[in-house]
Amino acid sequence: MRIAAIISYDGTSYCGWQKQENGISVQGKIEDALFHVTGEKIQITGAGRTDAGVHALGQVAHFDINCSIPPEKFSYAINSFLPADIRIKESFAVSDDFHSRFDATGKKYKYLIYNSKHASALLRNFSMHEPRCLDFDSMNIAAEFLKGEHDFSSFCAAGAQVKSFVRELYDIEISVNKDIVEFVFYGNGFLYNMVRIMVGTLIYVGIGKIQAEEITTIIEARDRTLAGITVPPQGLFLEKVYYKKLDRIYV
Amino acid sequence: MRIAAIISYDGTSYCGWQKQENGISVQGKIEDALFHVTGEKIQITGAGRTDAGVHALGQVAHFDINCSIPPEKFSYAINSFLPADIRIKESFAVSDDFHSRFDATGKKYKYLIYNSKHASALLRNFSMHEPRCLDFDSMNIAAEFLKGEHDFSSFCAAGAQVKSFVRELYDIEISVNKDIVEFVFYGNGFLYNMVRIMVGTLIYVGIGKIQAEEITTIIEARDRTLAGITVPPQGLFLEKVYYKKLDRIYV
Repeated sequence: MRIAAIISYDGTSYCGWQKQENGISVQGKIEDALFHVTGEKIQITGAGRTDAGVHALGQVAHFDINCSIPPEKFSYAINSFLPADIRIKESFAVSDDFHSRFDATGKKYKYLIYNSKHASALLRNFSMHEPRCLDFDSMNIAAEFLKGEHDFSSFCAAGAQVKSFVRELYDIEISVNKDIVEFVFYGNGFLYNMVRIMVGTLIYVGIGKIQAEEITTIIEARDRTLAGITVPPQGLFLEKVYYKKLDRIYV
Repeated sequence: MRIAAIISYDGTSYCGWQKQENGISVQGKIEDALFHVTGEKIQITGAGRTDAGVHALGQVAHFDINCSIPPEKFSYAINSFLPADIRIKESFAVSDDFHSRFDATGKKYKYLIYNSKHASALLRNFSMHEPRCLDFDSMNIAAEFLKGEHDFSSFCAAGAQVKSFVRELYDIEISVNKDIVEFVFYGNGFLYNMVRIMVGTLIYVGIGKIQAEEITTIIEARDRTLAGITVPPQGLFLEKVYYKKLDRIYV
């Protein structure tokens, strides 16, 4: 039986989602918990490979299992063997051909900036600190230029092995609540570090280092050096993974 | 010169605000940082003594100092010697008779509940997990009964040494955003554990264990055993301290 799980984690203490030789990963912790529950070595496949320090509110993973525990109860069983910074939010049976990564039709990421003269004591692991004043009008104009289908090579970290750098950004939202700036990026897929480079570029627009209208030139140049910095991982959250055929997944 | 500071902290790693023989306190950490900055042993006085695990967004403290650093720059100097989970948000000169605790005319506390079947990976240190369904209509009615000036003995932990148990609750707000329930309590002062016992009592109302109309009886009985449980510290935040004569403090 194939099970899908919706997973949230605080990425602070992990080397990222994916198992690595030298590091404690979220995937590894969940596979360890599954071993405790079932006595079997089960490999799980996640929808997105979040980097070290990046968080998830709605990562999706699937795995195959022979077990008498009802699928919906699996979340309770696994959670009892997981550290408190990883939680299975939902688990349920899916069709045998469901694939958490290949079937994903879209993803939503969130990025938080703490925009105040001093860093945040409470959000230090969940935001980037930016003390400078930001021009949100210009940032919103720049975000409009980023939306749509483009070759996002300028917003991709070096070394990415992908067939195509074309992705479609359905929407970007920038909202401000006191000293917290929240960016939401919703698209059909994201290149390596793409969200973090887009945020870094929008910050450059916000401080006047790049003009909003330059975004089109930067996209067309397909040159990483023209975009802004890669902002730190701790402000990034994988919020939701979208699927066409799996309505059940959006509980 | 007397300096006032607005302080935020993640209380997870501390034995509370106040210095103790066996434990690392927020007050102790700030006094250590002040020693690094000035070379003097300076005692600071906080507006409220938060317990172990309790957080602050706007604790206020004052201290006296002979130092050439401009008062507004003090926050930067102290922060550079503080751990990342404590931040001075503001520092400024106040009159020599200002007292952070005695002059406070009111305080605002926030309490967060994560109301979902599984605990939260990300808010585990910043909320209480409550998996049961809550009846918010009844809780709002109960909150109305708590508002106003009462003898709050029923909502005070044993051993409190105070002259009077009478306090005035100006306002209680309960708001729900998806699975996060936020309580805001604004009053002229709070007894020991009063906010946490009020939240525990409102949860009892929410699950039907106490009827909203019983709140008046519970208040009048002046009997701690009639109110609800004391909810855990990690959901509690000292949000703001109010003063009559110090407008400058609300930056």
